[in-house]
Amino acid sequence: LTIARFYVSSEELSGGRVVLAGQDHHHLSRVLRMRRGQEVTVMDGCGLVGRASIHEITPMQSIIVVEELVKMDEEQPRLHLYQAIPGAKKMDTVVRGAVESGICFIIPFSCHRSGSTRELSSGKMERWRKIALETSRLAGRSYLPEVSEPLDWDGALQSLCCLDRILYADERGGERPALTLGDEIPEELGLMVGPEGGFTDVEREDLAARGARAVTLGKNIMRTDTAGLVLTAAVRCHYGLL
Amino acid sequence: LTIARFYVSSEELSGGRVVLAGQDHHHLSRVLRMRRGQEVTVMDGCGLVGRASIHEITPMQSIIVVEELVKMDEEQPRLHLYQAIPGAKKMDTVVRGAVESGICFIIPFSCHRSGSTRELSSGKMERWRKIALETSRLAGRSYLPEVSEPLDWDGALQSLCCLDRILYADERGGERPALTLGDEIPEELGLMVGPEGGFTDVEREDLAARGARAVTLGKNIMRTDTAGLVLTAAVRCHYGLL
Repeated sequence: LTIARFYVSSEELSGGRVVLAGQDHHHLSRVLRMRRGQEVTVMDGCGLVGRASIHEITPMQSIIVVEELVKMDEEQPRLHLYQAIPGAKKMDTVVRGAVESGICFIIPFSCHRSGSTRELSSGKMERWRKIALETSRLAGRSYLPEVSEPLDWDGALQSLCCLDRILYADERGGERPALTLGDEIPEELGLMVGPEGGFTDVEREDLAARGARAVTLGKNIMRTDTAGLVLTAAVRCHYGLL
Repeated sequence: LTIARFYVSSEELSGGRVVLAGQDHHHLSRVLRMRRGQEVTVMDGCGLVGRASIHEITPMQSIIVVEELVKMDEEQPRLHLYQAIPGAKKMDTVVRGAVESGICFIIPFSCHRSGSTRELSSGKMERWRKIALETSRLAGRSYLPEVSEPLDWDGALQSLCCLDRILYADERGGERPALTLGDEIPEELGLMVGPEGGFTDVEREDLAARGARAVTLGKNIMRTDTAGLVLTAAVRCHYGLL
């Protein structure tokens, strides 16, 4: 029903002939059981998308011929989701939801009530990046979202200076997201979601000093892995992207 | 930080004195380790909310005295989430997200590409209702959402006649939710999310014949457990509830 999609290198894609090997080849030939002549989509994850078809399937690789290349517009605004490191496997859900709902950068950070960056094994980062890649492929994102290196609180605050606008979800309340955002679409928009238990007062002051605005997500309290999705949807809805 | 909340019977709540036993008592006295005099919130799940305090904690029960009762307004629109029965434990995620984001009725249904209603053991329904209750308590919903009995496709279609307006998420595209909804808030609004793989053409025709409108959730394809949350957020954002 949906056309199978694969990420490939920009060079191969521009060259018009793409060779899938390893997992992608396995997925195409064994899982999807595709055949010569069938249509696929190949993307470089940087906006280049090719309508393509299967030229040949050998035991070890699938050869794809690109028929038409389109350069997709960059997403506007570029959404940066700052997610306080949650417990258990909640970050898996956060990454999946963020990628599906249009986030460009996922930045795990630590603060007083969150998990710590030091507890994050490199295995965990790798796992989140794998989830991001696979979700992105299924969701058909032409620009591949990035899971950034985790930041501690000071690092997170410093990184905010690169953003044009910053909203953070505050369970104590705040303005409605739509009222905080103007009509003009910013280039880089930061959305911050705190830990279970929320930001501390000191952290709220830190955020205010960086120009971040507190927003409410309604009267019901949301878990940290729901809040990011709902805030993202509200922002995209406001800008007419949803 | 957040005040502990408990659902109790309307009779007790109106009477001004509430006895918690069993799990609620255990949660209050052992998990939260609350003490005499501390504040709690007691709700009947039908809009009545009491600000209350702990009068006494005995080994077997906690006695709560209600200090102030407020009747909350009914939620408008009342949101009915029709969710095609998904595989694995995805419905757990759907129920949690739906309850947190303001859905009043969760209606699992079957269609051509979904799981079947016959496969649903009564244990599963019980599990979803337990999740709904617990999530609702944590989220602070003053009106307790309901997980309805699962419906087959014909039953689902028939039940739509009770709704004022129906949107369904269509991965093939449709109007933006905001454009489909008017300014006037309907009383009963149905939001339908199909299975992985989408509705069939026949099902689309069935829905159109019932006045359901196809809406898009943007260009990226979402998993069925993300789609409901995003659609709900878009609707709430449109009506200024988010």
